[in-house]
Amino acid sequence: MSRDVVAAMTAYTLELREAAIKLNQNASPTDFPQALKEKVLAEMATRHWNIYPDFESMMLRGALAKTHGYDTANVLVGNGSNELLAATIPTFIGPGTPVVFPKPTFALYEKLVAVAGGIALPIAVDPPTGLLPLDEMLHAIDRCDNAVVIVCSPNNPTGGVLPEGGIDSLLATGSTVLFDRAYGDFAEDAMPPLHDRLVTFSTFSKAWGLAGLRVGWLASTASTCREIRKVKLPYSLNIISEAVAATALEHGEIRTRNVAATIAERERMFAAMQEIEGVTPFPSRSNFIAFTTQRNVKDVFNALHAGGILIRDVSAAVPNALRVSVGTPAENDAFLAALKQIMKA
Amino acid sequence: MSRDVVAAMTAYTLELREAAIKLNQNASPTDFPQALKEKVLAEMATRHWNIYPDFESMMLRGALAKTHGYDTANVLVGNGSNELLAATIPTFIGPGTPVVFPKPTFALYEKLVAVAGGIALPIAVDPPTGLLPLDEMLHAIDRCDNAVVIVCSPNNPTGGVLPEGGIDSLLATGSTVLFDRAYGDFAEDAMPPLHDRLVTFSTFSKAWGLAGLRVGWLASTASTCREIRKVKLPYSLNIISEAVAATALEHGEIRTRNVAATIAERERMFAAMQEIEGVTPFPSRSNFIAFTTQRNVKDVFNALHAGGILIRDVSAAVPNALRVSVGTPAENDAFLAALKQIMKA
Repeated sequence: MSRDVVAAMTAYTLELREAAIKLNQNASPTDFPQALKEKVLAEMATRHWNIYPDFESMMLRGALAKTHGYDTANVLVGNGSNELLAATIPTFIGPGTPVVFPKPTFALYEKLVAVAGGIALPIAVDPPTGLLPLDEMLHAIDRCDNAVVIVCSPNNPTGGVLPEGGIDSLLATGSTVLFDRAYGDFAEDAMPPLHDRLVTFSTFSKAWGLAGLRVGWLASTASTCREIRKVKLPYSLNIISEAVAATALEHGEIRTRNVAATIAERERMFAAMQEIEGVTPFPSRSNFIAFTTQRNVKDVFNALHAGGILIRDVSAAVPNALRVSVGTPAENDAFLAALKQIMKA
Repeated sequence: MSRDVVAAMTAYTLELREAAIKLNQNASPTDFPQALKEKVLAEMATRHWNIYPDFESMMLRGALAKTHGYDTANVLVGNGSNELLAATIPTFIGPGTPVVFPKPTFALYEKLVAVAGGIALPIAVDPPTGLLPLDEMLHAIDRCDNAVVIVCSPNNPTGGVLPEGGIDSLLATGSTVLFDRAYGDFAEDAMPPLHDRLVTFSTFSKAWGLAGLRVGWLASTASTCREIRKVKLPYSLNIISEAVAATALEHGEIRTRNVAATIAERERMFAAMQEIEGVTPFPSRSNFIAFTTQRNVKDVFNALHAGGILIRDVSAAVPNALRVSVGTPAENDAFLAALKQIMKA
């Protein structure tokens, strides 16, 4: 009864497991500051909840534009960057559109492309290089008419990035480029300049520590935002999430501090993992590290879980690989000690 | 650069105007109770905001299932019923799918159908009857293979409803029926029984007075929910909106009271509007009344706005018609007095 393309799909799933230490979702290990929580909640007690949010979320869009030196018309906001991806993909991708993307990558893209009727042209990632396969992507684009490119850099779940100048090279092909910068802060890259054929997706779920509030945003030229806005639902962001995100932007030090702490811990973890015999971590510019081990991947995953540590089994995407999110120093210490112990056994 | 179908679309827009009395969005005139706002906000100050919401929103789905006598697997939740419509339409509607729906109706359906590539088969509504054109819809379905039906009953912006037994008649054709029950509480109808080919959409934005929090839900069989779940984004509902909606469900009296007040005011307004010379209100089972006037519709709209009252100009959808939401008794009195005055001038 559902369309064949949907009937043939599997759902994007997450194995639900409890654990004392959860390093499986690439969220921030640091919560939003309590004083700011209380400030925005107190404001929310005085708002009308029965009235629709502003039709165009002008307040948060304006705050993001100001922070990044854009006009409000260059920004759209939504319930996580997922919602914006779900609106943008059918804006540019229809039945038969060729879509070039590195694989493995965030599984949602391929599902949304399938629903839109696009033709998936996955390009294999080689995780140990720490780079996304730009040349192979450019070759694939050359062989298509009007390809759309989707690229997540740093890439989830492998951690690698586009080579320097990668976005420019992709744009130079004439393609439309959907650039998921969810983890971009951890690579210390800069937002690329606005371009009619470039849509850049960002999120408050990672570096800002606001995954529970579900706020994402995109940036492009005003004319491209207008096209996406035709497909995106109005009013989608609730008044509380909008206010929290705007409050966060007034405190840029939250992001700076979280990013610095995560990068320092990532580098420490990477070095420590390289020292564990039988473990090969992949270079990562993100807030997680993917790695392979010489022991069976399910055994390592289960042994960690038995010790109260939940990470992500990504072996369906990267042969024999697991992925650990960067947590607090104490969480990371617990993970490193447990992994070392397991590899010795 | 965007797809032709998108380039040809206009955005779903709302003319932004300020006014002392806003009766233009069919929201509840009564805010959520202050004590409950403060209770849930206090709980939210103790939650982790850096952690993703539950992947499947089990808590709210469970609460909705319990309230309505379903299983959790029969319910999905999202950011307003809009998000669920946006996921459900491409689950069932693809390139070439015939889609039968009354027109005028909520403009979003036709946009989402166009993006999905469906073939729109609008069936004209005759607003003075207070009924949706069931027989004409059944005839249109008969002439197609595997039509999908979208029906909003009570219908926005006309206020009419499907005749008794309408959903059963539509299902008897073998069609898939997407039933938007956003205004159903005001018609005092019952939720229809679950059926594999029926998806019923409900919202917390109207009768519950929670439009600002953006929470909607759908009900169907577990197997149909599973198909929609493949297209719907995970984690889409933030932790605060989920908690607010669950708190609301513990206080069913909020909805009962709001619905009773709205129905009483709607009936009073309808009777009063019938008494105003040159005004013809359409029968409504919803929380708004559409009406035509013998004066130019823009003049009446502007004169009301000059007097501080904002309603909705729906004349692009229903010739010469305006739509007023049912407000508080004082707001409705102000509207009725102003309309009477304008029609005399």
